[in-house]
Amino acid sequence: MRILLANANTTEAITELCAAAARGTASPGTVIVPATPRFGPAVISTRAENAIASHAVLDLLAGYATGEDRVDAVLLAVSHDTALEAARQLMPCPVLGMTEAACLTACMLGARFGLVTLGGVEMYSELMARHGLATRCAGLEGVDATPPQALEDPEGVAAKVGAAIARLVSQGADSVVLGGAALAGMEERLRRDASVPLLEGIACGVRLAEMLVRMAPGKPATGAMAAPRGRGSIGLSPALAALLQGPPG
Amino acid sequence: MRILLANANTTEAITELCAAAARGTASPGTVIVPATPRFGPAVISTRAENAIASHAVLDLLAGYATGEDRVDAVLLAVSHDTALEAARQLMPCPVLGMTEAACLTACMLGARFGLVTLGGVEMYSELMARHGLATRCAGLEGVDATPPQALEDPEGVAAKVGAAIARLVSQGADSVVLGGAALAGMEERLRRDASVPLLEGIACGVRLAEMLVRMAPGKPATGAMAAPRGRGSIGLSPALAALLQGPPG
Amino acid sequence: MRILLANANTTEAITELCAAAARGTASPGTVIVPATPRFGPAVISTRAENAIASHAVLDLLAGYATGEDRVDAVLLAVSHDTALEAARQLMPCPVLGMTEAACLTACMLGARFGLVTLGGVEMYSELMARHGLATRCAGLEGVDATPPQALEDPEGVAAKVGAAIARLVSQGADSVVLGGAALAGMEERLRRDASVPLLEGIACGVRLAEMLVRMAPGKPATGAMAAPRGRGSIGLSPALAALLQGPPG
Amino acid sequence: MRILLANANTTEAITELCAAAARGTASPGTVIVPATPRFGPAVISTRAENAIASHAVLDLLAGYATGEDRVDAVLLAVSHDTALEAARQLMPCPVLGMTEAACLTACMLGARFGLVTLGGVEMYSELMARHGLATRCAGLEGVDATPPQALEDPEGVAAKVGAAIARLVSQGADSVVLGGAALAGMEERLRRDASVPLLEGIACGVRLAEMLVRMAPGKPATGAMAAPRGRGSIGLSPALAALLQGPPG
Amino acid sequence: MRILLANANTTEAITELCAAAARGTASPGTVIVPATPRFGPAVISTRAENAIASHAVLDLLAGYATGEDRVDAVLLAVSHDTALEAARQLMPCPVLGMTEAACLTACMLGARFGLVTLGGVEMYSELMARHGLATRCAGLEGVDATPPQALEDPEGVAAKVGAAIARLVSQGADSVVLGGAALAGMEERLRRDASVPLLEGIACGVRLAEMLVRMAPGKPATGAMAAPRGRGSIGLSPALAALLQGPPG
Amino acid sequence: MRILLANANTTEAITELCAAAARGTASPGTVIVPATPRFGPAVISTRAENAIASHAVLDLLAGYATGEDRVDAVLLAVSHDTALEAARQLMPCPVLGMTEAACLTACMLGARFGLVTLGGVEMYSELMARHGLATRCAGLEGVDATPPQALEDPEGVAAKVGAAIARLVSQGADSVVLGGAALAGMEERLRRDASVPLLEGIACGVRLAEMLVRMAPGKPATGAMAAPRGRGSIGLSPALAALLQGPPG
Repeated sequence: MRILLANANTTEAITELCAAAARGTASPGTVIVPATPRFGPAVISTRAENAIASHAVLDLLAGYATGEDRVDAVLLAVSHDTALEAARQLMPCPVLGMTEAACLTACMLGARFGLVTLGGVEMYSELMARHGLATRCAGLEGVDATPPQALEDPEGVAAKVGAAIARLVSQGADSVVLGGAALAGMEERLRRDASVPLLEGIACGVRLAEMLVRMAPGKPATGAMAAPRGRGSIGLSPALAALLQGPPG
Repeated sequence: MRILLANANTTEAITELCAAAARGTASPGTVIVPATPRFGPAVISTRAENAIASHAVLDLLAGYATGEDRVDAVLLAVSHDTALEAARQLMPCPVLGMTEAACLTACMLGARFGLVTLGGVEMYSELMARHGLATRCAGLEGVDATPPQALEDPEGVAAKVGAAIARLVSQGADSVVLGGAALAGMEERLRRDASVPLLEGIACGVRLAEMLVRMAPGKPATGAMAAPRGRGSIGLSPALAALLQGPPG
Repeated sequence: MRILLANANTTEAITELCAAAARGTASPGTVIVPATPRFGPAVISTRAENAIASHAVLDLLAGYATGEDRVDAVLLAVSHDTALEAARQLMPCPVLGMTEAACLTACMLGARFGLVTLGGVEMYSELMARHGLATRCAGLEGVDATPPQALEDPEGVAAKVGAAIARLVSQGADSVVLGGAALAGMEERLRRDASVPLLEGIACGVRLAEMLVRMAPGKPATGAMAAPRGRGSIGLSPALAALLQGPPG
Repeated sequence: MRILLANANTTEAITELCAAAARGTASPGTVIVPATPRFGPAVISTRAENAIASHAVLDLLAGYATGEDRVDAVLLAVSHDTALEAARQLMPCPVLGMTEAACLTACMLGARFGLVTLGGVEMYSELMARHGLATRCAGLEGVDATPPQALEDPEGVAAKVGAAIARLVSQGADSVVLGGAALAGMEERLRRDASVPLLEGIACGVRLAEMLVRMAPGKPATGAMAAPRGRGSIGLSPALAALLQGPPG
Repeated sequence: MRILLANANTTEAITELCAAAARGTASPGTVIVPATPRFGPAVISTRAENAIASHAVLDLLAGYATGEDRVDAVLLAVSHDTALEAARQLMPCPVLGMTEAACLTACMLGARFGLVTLGGVEMYSELMARHGLATRCAGLEGVDATPPQALEDPEGVAAKVGAAIARLVSQGADSVVLGGAALAGMEERLRRDASVPLLEGIACGVRLAEMLVRMAPGKPATGAMAAPRGRGSIGLSPALAALLQGPPG
Repeated sequence: MRILLANANTTEAITELCAAAARGTASPGTVIVPATPRFGPAVISTRAENAIASHAVLDLLAGYATGEDRVDAVLLAVSHDTALEAARQLMPCPVLGMTEAACLTACMLGARFGLVTLGGVEMYSELMARHGLATRCAGLEGVDATPPQALEDPEGVAAKVGAAIARLVSQGADSVVLGGAALAGMEERLRRDASVPLLEGIACGVRLAEMLVRMAPGKPATGAMAAPRGRGSIGLSPALAALLQGPPG
């Protein structure tokens, strides 16, 4: 089984980090195929960057939809689940977002979950609404620290994150989603002190992707999630243009 | 890995049916342990029966929480997800409900899903709200037929169910959950005509249970999902009373 | 008129306490019939206990549905409104929950109400959603104290509860529901300092039960609240099994 | 006990009709005091009329707030619950609206209720949202008939209303609220055919008002429901102006 | 173009203040027609006053619906948007509320807005729900100060308001609505320190009213917003009674 | 004043059509600057196309953010309001979406609006949720016809659209938004038969854009809508990359 681990921003180091995490989780026999878009923001942290990356990630995915490089599933390795629904419509295989995967896993473990991230929480708040999971979300905590700071002072930032996790638990979270790749590195340290399960999106996503591939539920043939067909375009990569066009006949 | 397939009503034939479905889906190495409560309603179809069965299913689960019979996960083989949150709190291992499992799987496949069942939909409507999935649910269709009728006239009932599935698709469902064991038998026939994926709870639940066991996210040590401790009771089975009491010390 | 005051846990002292409160409120001519389940948790404080008590309380109620012991109404003397909707379906007479009764009374007094209780608020938060009253609820306050502490240090705990009431008022509560029997004892003391009405569930419930008995609105003959009919079971008390089976013919 | 039965429109015949219904329901010892505003719309059926009648009904109530004519409770005999929250703030005694009373009673009888009325349902839909009861409401049915037609052809209109009730039951209503005085007359006929309880607002409201008077929960001293104090005005009736001004000192 | 600037309370000084603000914003050629009700509360700050003023403002508007004084649009110069929907139904021209206008403008500038006011926020919270804008509202802040205090100590009160604005921004507000005329005076001072746009209702309302007049979208001829027709009344001003009655024939 | 009329798909004929409509509505002195992306889907009708166009439209806008071509406002001439929030964050000037503009205008005219379009309504349903306007939307009607059919058989398609409008009115719509450029052509014909105002997005958007430019509310300096600053990227157009990077210093 081949799972495309698709970053939506252009920083290859993040792709590599996520790919390592994915390989650490994947079942024997699962091949993790890391991929980075050929254009777009270095790191997505605003609405504008997310909108640009929506195209970038579909452009990337199109290369793995058919032919030799065809994959069996896609995991979007970006905490904003960039273009998730569009990718799901476009691709012939299952597509998962890493934050979606962690949140749905959290739904299987308790009544409500929290989410902690570095920086602001506005985009995560919209993401919960977009996924229809607002009533399952006990709270969002944005820790006042940047990813570079997390690398420089991991102990200090982990202490802040740990305090945020405790606040989420006191608000009723039965588990906590770690939002963003920057927290993945301190997962073990956080887990020592947390009184509830911590969920990391790559690990959840790889396992759910494997499950969907084995289950093979198929794809809608009609409706808003059916693959595009006969849609014309200009200036797109040949692979993406071909996917919009669909099979001849 | 041992997965308890726990019916919440006392009709063993349904347990067997679900166990067969579970075994058809389970990975090699997974042992399906079917179990039926020792008391309670024959078939749950009303609120009163569901409330009685809440105790019956916990009574059943308690026998598999520790010791030799200990299981690695529980799948509730009852479409009402009877006592799901309570079982999740009580047991030391992951617990899934079959309708919950199908709905969460549906969330990974499209924007919204529908649910079709035989009989009334009121209890399913409450279930969607209880799971916080109302905004992901495009509609509920209750087909005017009973499980016995489904056995007597499978073609006729399947035609009605197929029409209900088509209505759900026209309301925006990207996939359709088959609610209740009675529909499991006609799954293949339904799939031939359906234009979107059909999701059956036992199949989804076994796969998600396997995934959670492998992931081993742990259990909350504090909060409303933490295991009971020091809770006294009278007149319960020794195993259930012991679970409420928790470990000594 | 006979009103069954049905505890859902097995601590008779709580039943007696609630019965005394009920008698203090009841109209002349109303007979309060206290009753305690023959099995189940000593005190319900977790989801698992609540699920077990769902059966216990229906088992208890069944003995008062018909025949000599038949009552005219039921008041569930448990702050979690355990198995309320199931009891309402099962019984031929009106059934009220004590927290529901206090909240509906609160709706008649102002725009929004608050609720204060000892311990965690997660289960009350779900109860508000279950009753569809979330938009009428200005806030929930869980006071960090146990019922035994409330008995040992009533002044100290009452001070904490009073502070919680004041916080709820500042959040917009026009009245405050006292959640749980442990607060009933300190009602008078709390009332002295509170700037809004305080509502206690037993008092509200007895009055509303009397009102429903006098009004005699009847019971649904069809739909999800109609009495069970022809539902088989095993291992239940004869009275409960008979209620599920319904009248012959 | 004196209950003011306050119409919000100026058609005395409706006041009389409602007063007769109220007297038929009231306990011995309860005096029903009917009252009709001295200005305003003949019959409220639009937003503009409802807004005008908001003043008219408060003007009316003010005459019964203090002094000899002081009442113990108010029941607004108008299906739009006109100025209910304002009246509740203004008056020193409990105030109920007839549709609110019927809906809250319905909440004690089942999971969801329906509402049927003559004419459009837009204003009732807003009323459900205003009362925070939208999730408890299974549906609203507006029958295409006017109150005069109901008087001319009671059988024909009752048949339409009965069909609407049946539709609400099939949508999951466990009881049905009769919205508007025009349906009160055909209540008995409707009850014969209905499979669920029918609730009429005056009957529910009188009983709930009696209950609140006996319970004497008091009135908020602070917050948005506290009585006005020191509020100046011009051109209002002396009684209303005095209530806004509050007690001296 | 003539825009009626209709106060809903009877303090002419407020009308003048708002009229000056309106004139400062209006396009050349727009005539601002200030008007104050002939009866009602001096300043609306409670539900009871708002209900009385509902009639007062419709009474006022009726004088400008037809004939020589006919205006082209109405802006309600009262922060509670008193009787807005009723006025919209009643009048033949566009009607806007000042808080509604500011909130809808805020919707064009960002994802969510906050609102700051002097005093309590309960009525504004209900207003957000009434306008269906609750999900666009990041928070409401009530500053502990009265309008007279704002006049006496503008610097001190402005500091408090500025702090409240900063809190709203930290809660995710992309702009902040200034609720109530009392804040209009300190707008410039507040704007110096605010990091997001501040929106004042009169300015927004005048501009939106001009836009609607130029667009001339017409008025619904059917449904709940259609002008009243054939509605009888007693004791109302001739102009208001005539509007309820509608044109002859 | 210069308003950029930015199509999000690459069919210049649609840009021209919308530009003509915009010019027909614009005030004297307003210059409409039509623009079409240099890459992307011909016509957006699926999620995948919308995600690709998100980048295309930001790429287009970036050319008008600064320098000689700088515009004073942007109107997105695409009924899906593609990348609206991202464009709002990115650009230094006000940005409006055509469907958003029509819906907000509808909010000023009545309690609820409907929306009619050719084809499916799933994406519009998500758009209403994204704009937080679901409670203001009485219904969505998708007419079974394609834009080419609308050109071939305008009378026939207009009849279908008219019937859909009537259905929306019967569901409580006080006005109806015409979704998509294909309906703009038949606006006049539709208006003849409609009993409520019809709102077309280009007309509403041009007027609201003019209003915002005149009001000059400014742009958030902090928070999730503040302009990007210091955001690196690769492979983007120089103008777009520069906007993400922000001003030096």
